[in-house]
Amino acid sequence: MTRQKIGILGATGMVGQRFIQLLEHHPWFEVTWLAASDRSSGKRYGDAVRWKLDTPIPARIAQLEISPAQPEGAPKVIFAALDSDIARELEPRFAEAGCAVISNSSAFRMQADVPLVIPEVNADHLAILEHQQWRKQSGGYIVTNPNCSAIGLVLALKPLEEIFGIESIFVSTMQAISGAGYPGVPSLDILGNVVPYIKNEEEKLQEETLRLLGSLQGNLVQPLDARIAAHCNRVAVEDGHTESVSIKFRRKAAREEILAAWAGFAPLAGKDLPTAPAQPVEFLDAEDRPQPRLDRMRGRGMAASVGRLRPCNLLDWKFTVLSHNTIRGAAGAALLNAEFLVSLGKLAPSAVHA
Amino acid sequence: MTRQKIGILGATGMVGQRFIQLLEHHPWFEVTWLAASDRSSGKRYGDAVRWKLDTPIPARIAQLEISPAQPEGAPKVIFAALDSDIARELEPRFAEAGCAVISNSSAFRMQADVPLVIPEVNADHLAILEHQQWRKQSGGYIVTNPNCSAIGLVLALKPLEEIFGIESIFVSTMQAISGAGYPGVPSLDILGNVVPYIKNEEEKLQEETLRLLGSLQGNLVQPLDARIAAHCNRVAVEDGHTESVSIKFRRKAAREEILAAWAGFAPLAGKDLPTAPAQPVEFLDAEDRPQPRLDRMRGRGMAASVGRLRPCNLLDWKFTVLSHNTIRGAAGAALLNAEFLVSLGKLAPSAVHA
Amino acid sequence: MTRQKIGILGATGMVGQRFIQLLEHHPWFEVTWLAASDRSSGKRYGDAVRWKLDTPIPARIAQLEISPAQPEGAPKVIFAALDSDIARELEPRFAEAGCAVISNSSAFRMQADVPLVIPEVNADHLAILEHQQWRKQSGGYIVTNPNCSAIGLVLALKPLEEIFGIESIFVSTMQAISGAGYPGVPSLDILGNVVPYIKNEEEKLQEETLRLLGSLQGNLVQPLDARIAAHCNRVAVEDGHTESVSIKFRRKAAREEILAAWAGFAPLAGKDLPTAPAQPVEFLDAEDRPQPRLDRMRGRGMAASVGRLRPCNLLDWKFTVLSHNTIRGAAGAALLNAEFLVSLGKLAPSAVHA
Amino acid sequence: MTRQKIGILGATGMVGQRFIQLLEHHPWFEVTWLAASDRSSGKRYGDAVRWKLDTPIPARIAQLEISPAQPEGAPKVIFAALDSDIARELEPRFAEAGCAVISNSSAFRMQADVPLVIPEVNADHLAILEHQQWRKQSGGYIVTNPNCSAIGLVLALKPLEEIFGIESIFVSTMQAISGAGYPGVPSLDILGNVVPYIKNEEEKLQEETLRLLGSLQGNLVQPLDARIAAHCNRVAVEDGHTESVSIKFRRKAAREEILAAWAGFAPLAGKDLPTAPAQPVEFLDAEDRPQPRLDRMRGRGMAASVGRLRPCNLLDWKFTVLSHNTIRGAAGAALLNAEFLVSLGKLAPSAVHA
Repeated sequence: MTRQKIGILGATGMVGQRFIQLLEHHPWFEVTWLAASDRSSGKRYGDAVRWKLDTPIPARIAQLEISPAQPEGAPKVIFAALDSDIARELEPRFAEAGCAVISNSSAFRMQADVPLVIPEVNADHLAILEHQQWRKQSGGYIVTNPNCSAIGLVLALKPLEEIFGIESIFVSTMQAISGAGYPGVPSLDILGNVVPYIKNEEEKLQEETLRLLGSLQGNLVQPLDARIAAHCNRVAVEDGHTESVSIKFRRKAAREEILAAWAGFAPLAGKDLPTAPAQPVEFLDAEDRPQPRLDRMRGRGMAASVGRLRPCNLLDWKFTVLSHNTIRGAAGAALLNAEFLVSLGKLAPSAVHA
Repeated sequence: MTRQKIGILGATGMVGQRFIQLLEHHPWFEVTWLAASDRSSGKRYGDAVRWKLDTPIPARIAQLEISPAQPEGAPKVIFAALDSDIARELEPRFAEAGCAVISNSSAFRMQADVPLVIPEVNADHLAILEHQQWRKQSGGYIVTNPNCSAIGLVLALKPLEEIFGIESIFVSTMQAISGAGYPGVPSLDILGNVVPYIKNEEEKLQEETLRLLGSLQGNLVQPLDARIAAHCNRVAVEDGHTESVSIKFRRKAAREEILAAWAGFAPLAGKDLPTAPAQPVEFLDAEDRPQPRLDRMRGRGMAASVGRLRPCNLLDWKFTVLSHNTIRGAAGAALLNAEFLVSLGKLAPSAVHA
Repeated sequence: MTRQKIGILGATGMVGQRFIQLLEHHPWFEVTWLAASDRSSGKRYGDAVRWKLDTPIPARIAQLEISPAQPEGAPKVIFAALDSDIARELEPRFAEAGCAVISNSSAFRMQADVPLVIPEVNADHLAILEHQQWRKQSGGYIVTNPNCSAIGLVLALKPLEEIFGIESIFVSTMQAISGAGYPGVPSLDILGNVVPYIKNEEEKLQEETLRLLGSLQGNLVQPLDARIAAHCNRVAVEDGHTESVSIKFRRKAAREEILAAWAGFAPLAGKDLPTAPAQPVEFLDAEDRPQPRLDRMRGRGMAASVGRLRPCNLLDWKFTVLSHNTIRGAAGAALLNAEFLVSLGKLAPSAVHA
Repeated sequence: MTRQKIGILGATGMVGQRFIQLLEHHPWFEVTWLAASDRSSGKRYGDAVRWKLDTPIPARIAQLEISPAQPEGAPKVIFAALDSDIARELEPRFAEAGCAVISNSSAFRMQADVPLVIPEVNADHLAILEHQQWRKQSGGYIVTNPNCSAIGLVLALKPLEEIFGIESIFVSTMQAISGAGYPGVPSLDILGNVVPYIKNEEEKLQEETLRLLGSLQGNLVQPLDARIAAHCNRVAVEDGHTESVSIKFRRKAAREEILAAWAGFAPLAGKDLPTAPAQPVEFLDAEDRPQPRLDRMRGRGMAASVGRLRPCNLLDWKFTVLSHNTIRGAAGAALLNAEFLVSLGKLAPSAVHA
């Protein structure tokens, strides 16, 4: 089987680096094209990047020359890890040119005809990509994954929503510094400190959560009819967003029912997607877990860990959820979206299934 | 004026050290007696303590010999910074012996005839100490201050409760390591990490908050009739507890009314208590404040800082509150209780006002 | 091929946990026996341990019952991760009983007939184990690996010593907290701090380095005739010891010669030891490397990384060396010693090569 | 007495902020003029600065309008906290215009006619300012203080050099993040990490140390005839540079002699300079001190702390020195230089002593 050639837009940033790391031995995809800012264009990737991961740059990738950020010469499948402003301008150009743009950016997440998808949660929303103008004209499209703070929460909520119905959600986050990219958060701001503010984060977390848990009605996603209030904080953690959550259900849920819902949640079972975790939501029984340093790599960084399930005085239940913000919360999320699109035959299928 | 001689029970611990630091130049009180565990008894304080504050041990205190933890020979005013188990056993002995025991321990906070007090919040609750058996027999008594995670929250809530009435409270904490004492939290547990659990902390934070905001009815404190749900987390911060809060009021409150309530909150004005902050609740306008590293020392560590006031989708308003956990949240709280008792003439008044 | 059954003494500590992690899929060894303190004896390992690694406890190991720390019933190959005091008492009992004790403890490292070995550096020193009383009587023996701060340094020095001769060594360390075990370093001591002292560490680093670089003369190891001065510091890093080094050679060395010496250092090539890194010393060209967070996992945690080679005003050359303190510096070091002993036919060879 | 009006160049940076903090209640100096980059010019200081200190911006200063960075309208005494490139251009303009420029920048530290001074160490070097062209033409001049990593070291070495003579110095630093300014070190680079490189730092530390310990010969400073080798590292500490030092003396020094030299070092005694610490070098007897979190504020941040004095296998003695890098190592150093110039009658003396 020939591997699908893929390109990465924004290859030198933190999420771009994670794409390269996660794709190094990918059975279906092969990185053949990298683009970054004009400043880097024409340089070898190894010279242009400030590599910040704890595995070395794959040798082949280090030698790749960085291309201009234009669709000409790019492969037909593009992972995009761009800042929102730049994504708003560049991603449509690639979609117009017939590319499948698998985007981690927030730019189009709330646009009516752009799917915002977690395969385990709302894969059916992918249907709306057929209504994109780009799709109709060139075959290209944009598909997005959520904000890093929303993914873990939504994975934990989805099996509960299906069974008990969710009425209200309170979430207070403690987010890792890698979520802000590089150079990102100055060390003087976070060492021995907490910053109780991340720009636009509460808004994204609130609205993306309801859209992801929403239902497809015709060509449109109807957000979940529930109330959600988020507090977003930055803490001195390298990777892994931890979230304190309270929820109110529409019908009464016993502790054992909740645990069973999480344990039984395996919507991708049988699909054999290389990046999908066997168990998307892992419940940890110890009273002081999950913890980012110890649990973020569960399911190779793709599982959400939950723990501390206990009654809430105000809503029904309290728990803690944790997920890796640059794997499950960014590059791994996009990669899983791409793999799911392959399973639908929508990601340049001829190349992959030849 | 002669300064009141005071003793410290638990003088070698983190809170004991803060007592010594805060009392170094105190105009009313003079440390003349220190007690700690049997292991330390008989040693010079400077030899027994593992001093962890960033100001040197006062030279006179370093020379004091540590006494056995018994009321014989102790002064009549005792600051107690004991672990709960030990406090439960030792504090009554001192009260029985006629001492005013100003305690930071949780052992008796919820006992019906023991005042749990923040002078700016519920000084009237001190009246119940007259009903203590010890008081009647020997003149001694126990007065307590709240848990370090409750004090900042309650200071921020009190002026709002008075004006708008509080119906529901959500609070998610990010607590400093010094709250766990020394050696306390192992570095392997907290460096680059979050621990979403502190033993018994959520229970204390919930019940103490309602008791502090409660009303005195006869000899009893009637807790505030409100609902409160707490999530308690430990983060890699040396000092300063940060809390994400959502509240629902009984009557509608406009942003400007809330700010005015905080700005106008000065219940101790005119009392000239040495440790009382001029402004117990300081509102910070910057979008990313309060932060523990920058704001914990406001009001010499005795003010609660609030910020990020914004509407809540679920309750009415969201904000962040921060306070120094070993000053306002522990030693400073007890010290202010003692100063307030002086103003009532109940803390060995003859000595102080001679 | 049957895998050699092995036991772990001190299985619940930080190094014991690393043994279990590294041995999970080992092709030659199989953990069948675990011992820890009396307190843990009789419990399931999963219940007794406070697991602090970021991969889960292997399921089979979690079920193992912890045995008393006695040779009766133990396998004939024992990895020992005990505190020095306890090692001094227990390790001889196992050697006496015929066990190969592969020890990470400092207790016997400087004893004349006990090999202190890094296979890439001084494998020939293993010959002295034949002179141990235990070996002669029961076949059992003790073999040790060095202190975590010595291993990376010695790996970097060995190829230079061979070619240029070493006259003087200055080393200043910045050591990770995991080196102190659990609970180990209190967070109040190290968060935002440096502790310029680690008990006995400078002595160990100095004397072990000279012994490891020494030569076998008859039955005895003659330490390297060189001078070494060490400063040992603790810093807020989870894993990975970083060391600033200056060295004076006996003959002049050019930069390119030093780099070539490191690049060509592959003394175990062709031996196919599962834990041996392909390149024991990796030189990093970037001006700001090695760094613990980014480079400690090179060679799956078994390589020493060097960088910043530059002239020294006082001795000849300055450089920085980094190695993972609980893998290359502890459990991985012992494991590699055991694998090397297998290659010599000295580690219960019948079982392994059946 | 009228206070001397002073201006601050580079007022919004980390060192500029420290100047403002330290000058808030200064008995001799009054901040009346602030300049920063063009971007900030014309704004209120409180609006332009990202204040990162843990005391609030002085209210009067927050209201000051930021002036253009030109000598017109500036006071005659200027504290300069500029980046080196900008200092090289701007400082001469102010000196030309008759200003006393008390500079923290490295731009002119090694220029033959510019004094590089620590008042306790080499106040006599100030004589060379009379040879500056600016001084002769307008009365203005430039005086500099050393790099933050050199000051603590030189304070500790000076009394030893005077008595024993210094032949060789080894120093390995562990430097705080505040030394890099704001935003400075990205948190992804330093959280749980060490960076073994600070641009140009080793060179500055080496050459400034020898110049500071050098002797005035005619109009020129003759550097100390000694050898020095420095390793510079960045660690996860907010404030306070810790340094591991080995030294070789010209004549034998006993431990007690060294301690006596430090204890007796009080070269500014009797001068009553407001910022001078009573004891510039404090020896700490505990085996694990000095530590940045606990000791950086000794002498209100102006004392160097030394500890761990012990024999060195390679040179003569080893010790650890610590000093606050933005107080003693930057703003406080310049301030003390200015105060010393007042005592010489060279800092706009008419205004101060009117």
